[in-house]
Order: sequence, then C-alpha cells, then structure tokens
Amino acid sequence: MSETLSVTGLVATTPRHLVTQDGLPITSFRLASSQRRFDRTQNKWIDGETNWFTVTAFRQLAINSAGSINKGDRLVVAGKLRVRDWDNGERAGTSVEVEADSLGHDLTWGSSVFTRTVLVRE
Amino acid sequence: MSETLSVTGLVATTPRHLVTQDGLPITSFRLASSQRRFDRTQNKWIDGETNWFTVTAFRQLAINSAGSINKGDRLVVAGKLRVRDWDNGERAGTSVEVEADSLGHDLTWGSSVFTRTVLVRE
Amino acid sequence: MSETLSVTGLVATTPRHLVTQDGLPITSFRLASSQRRFDRTQNKWIDGETNWFTVTAFRQLAINSAGSINKGDRLVVAGKLRVRDWDNGERAGTSVEVEADSLGHDLTWGSSVFTRTVLVRE
Amino acid sequence: MSETLSVTGLVATTPRHLVTQDGLPITSFRLASSQRRFDRTQNKWIDGETNWFTVTAFRQLAINSAGSINKGDRLVVAGKLRVRDWDNGERAGTSVEVEADSLGHDLTWGSSVFTRTVLVRE
Repeated sequence: MSETLSVTGLVATTPRHLVTQDGLPITSFRLASSQRRFDRTQNKWIDGETNWFTVTAFRQLAINSAGSINKGDRLVVAGKLRVRDWDNGERAGTSVEVEADSLGHDLTWGSSVFTRTVLVRE
Repeated sequence: MSETLSVTGLVATTPRHLVTQDGLPITSFRLASSQRRFDRTQNKWIDGETNWFTVTAFRQLAINSAGSINKGDRLVVAGKLRVRDWDNGERAGTSVEVEADSLGHDLTWGSSVFTRTVLVRE
Repeated sequence: MSETLSVTGLVATTPRHLVTQDGLPITSFRLASSQRRFDRTQNKWIDGETNWFTVTAFRQLAINSAGSINKGDRLVVAGKLRVRDWDNGERAGTSVEVEADSLGHDLTWGSSVFTRTVLVRE
Repeated sequence: MSETLSVTGLVATTPRHLVTQDGLPITSFRLASSQRRFDRTQNKWIDGETNWFTVTAFRQLAINSAGSINKGDRLVVAGKLRVRDWDNGERAGTSVEVEADSLGHDLTWGSSVFTRTVLVRE
C-alpha cells in the first residue's frame, strides 16, 4: 500500500515546468503547510509548525497546474507520499515529496473561475 | 480521532447555499466519486463503482464555494467523514457526508483563475 | 482514485467468517468509531458522534482476523471506503464499508502478543 | 489542518522507550514501508520503493507499544505527519516522523492475542 494523504498549504516557490525527452510534462513547486492547533493554555487557535513538501504533478495535471498556479496561492493537494534519501556525492539528505493525483486552489481563501480542458472519460 | 479523508469527483447537483438564523453560511452539494481500477484480465484501467457523498462547507469556504462551483465541475475535497443514521418518521436511512476543510477545482480536468479574498492569518 | 482512510474504533458485533465457493475467505464485523473533540465552552475533550462502518477483510487477513478479533476489541483499520446503495425489493438503504488493507488491535487500549504466520514477500 | 495518514510497514529498529523528567512516556522506532505496485510490463505486483518513517508514541500507547512491539514486527499506524528540518551544528537534515494516534500489529501477517489494559472512556 502506498501512503496517500491530502495536504493544504501555500505555494512557496514559482512552479517549475518542464517536458522530458520522452514527452512527459512535469510541474513541481514547494508547498508550506502550517498546522493550526488549539492551545488550551491560551484558549485559542494558534499557528503550529510547518510541514514542507515538494509537490510534483505529471501529464495533463502538470500542464494545467503550470498555467494556473502562482507563488503565494493556497492549494489543496491529494496524492502519494514519497520519502527518499538522496546523495549527490557532495551532500546527502532526505526529500519529502507528494506526487499529486489531484490538486486545486483552496476556496477557503478565494474564488476561482474554472475552464474545463479535459473532456475524456465521461 | 475523526476520520479525515480526501475525495475527488464530479459535482452532481446544483450547490445549495443558505445562511442560518445565527448568520452561519452553509453550502452543500452531492459529489460522485468514480474509482478507476486496473483490470488484470483486460490489462487496462476501467471505471469502478461510484461513491456518493454529500459535501458541506461552512463560513468563508461556503461563500466562496457558492460563487465558484457549478454542477458538472470536477473537485478535490479534503475533510472529515460523517456517517449518520436518520429517521424523519416516514422514512429512515444513512447519510454519508464530508464536512470540507478545504476544496478546489481539480486541475486534472481544466485550468482555473484564482482571486484571493481572504487576507488574514499570514 | 479510491478513497483510502484509516478508522479506529470498537468492534461492535461478533466477527462473521465464511469461505466462498471459490475458496475466498471473508471476515466482516461492525465497527463503531466515536470521535473525541475539544469543547471550547466546557474547555475539555468530550465524546462526539459515532461513525458506524462495516469492516470487511479478505484472504489471509480474513483468516487471521477471525482467529484474533472479538466483540469489544479496539482496532485500527486502514483501507478503502465503499459507499453503496442497496435495495432488496422490500427495503432500501445505504451501506458504508471499509475494505481493510491492514488492521490490528489498537495498542492505545491494551497489549498484544503477535505470532507471525505469513513469511512470504521478504 | 494537520496531515493525517496511515502507514503500514516493518519495524526496522528495536523500539526505544523512555520517560521524560515530567513523567511523559515516549516510545519510538523506525518503520520501513515498502510499496507494492502493479507493473504493467511484467503484468504482476512488484515491490516498489520504501518510505522510511520515525514513529513516535506517547503516554499509554507508548507504554503498551514498548511491551508489545519487537524489531521485525509488521504494524499498521495511524497518526500525524511531521516533516522537520534539523541542524545540530555539525550536520543538518530532514526528519520525517509519524506521531501515532493508534497503532497495532498488522493481522495481514500473523495473529495476535490482545489483553485490554485501559478501561476508561467507555
């Protein structure tokens, strides 16, 4: 079973869009998810710590994301979690990635005008 | 712990928007989530069965949803699952509701233009 | 995408175990998931409402569940949500089922002694 | 909203149990979650890559986990994801932690005998 999760947060970098030599469109950006929690000593909701993710989209979702998403936007993302160790010879670390199955602008924070581009599968 | 989940699907009814006597905005609609699955006998992806949910949004999310969402739109929704038995004297049944924490148009299916209306909390 | 979720709760019925004519073992039971929530007027955690699910397990998980789970046990279950309308001619309704990918006794509530029976795949 | 998720996998380290000076019991261990995926070229399920998590439990769940879980056990865990950057002056990195709300032995892989130790809240 792969770990599926949903993440809401703020787009923290300008989305990067590329097409591989095989013709696969990919869009990726960093997402900051700040967690609100109820503080019982203060009796109010406060900002908790922030989870940082690299969000990656492929194919049609990559194309539409590249054309619709800007740094500073608020999103809701559903996808699969990938935790990977990396080592480039000079440095090593851990990357935390969400491979998006779906994503959209979070209407908690604004309104959106939607234009359908995909007409298949219905 | 409450059951959190994310749901993607098609808005199947015209969203209904109301404001309670206490001033609470509420928007709700039906969402049909068809599940794609890989069929090993056919060696391809096919449409599986459909989960039906009532999605309910409150406060600012209700206001923005009412202004942005139309029947036929594709959404991604993150929220809390509520399974409730009901009985109105004449009939009884089970309702399956997702109380939305966030929702947006699913960019797998189109592009969106987003206008921020909420400027607090940052 | 299918709706995956995890559910914790109390086994509310004696698990029912059967093997289909094709040789497929199936175990199912009802699970009651009470949701704790923080009440700001009382300034303490209280019991919220209860989600009811039918949990269904197949194959080896069905066999091990039938031998390990009793009514009244506390479980953690990860699986896929299925919301289905049914109609048997006399009555109709909606069933809410979790098809378990994994499940176990929730160690929040007790201790367990585990005996491995599956040795494949490692 | 905090990112909730469920994880299944193999306990890869001997669980470490401690009690803080304030009297808070904590148990933690590493969990390896290998993802099975269907390979269309081979037409069969294969092992995908592995997500590594540090799982942390508190209070009664920590006490029961310390007494019940061994390296090599198979678990199902539901909890909150925490992605944190750390820097100890000499080295820096990213930790990926699941703060467990519930966890248990995964009955996909064996059978368990459960002894209830917590009798409150019902």
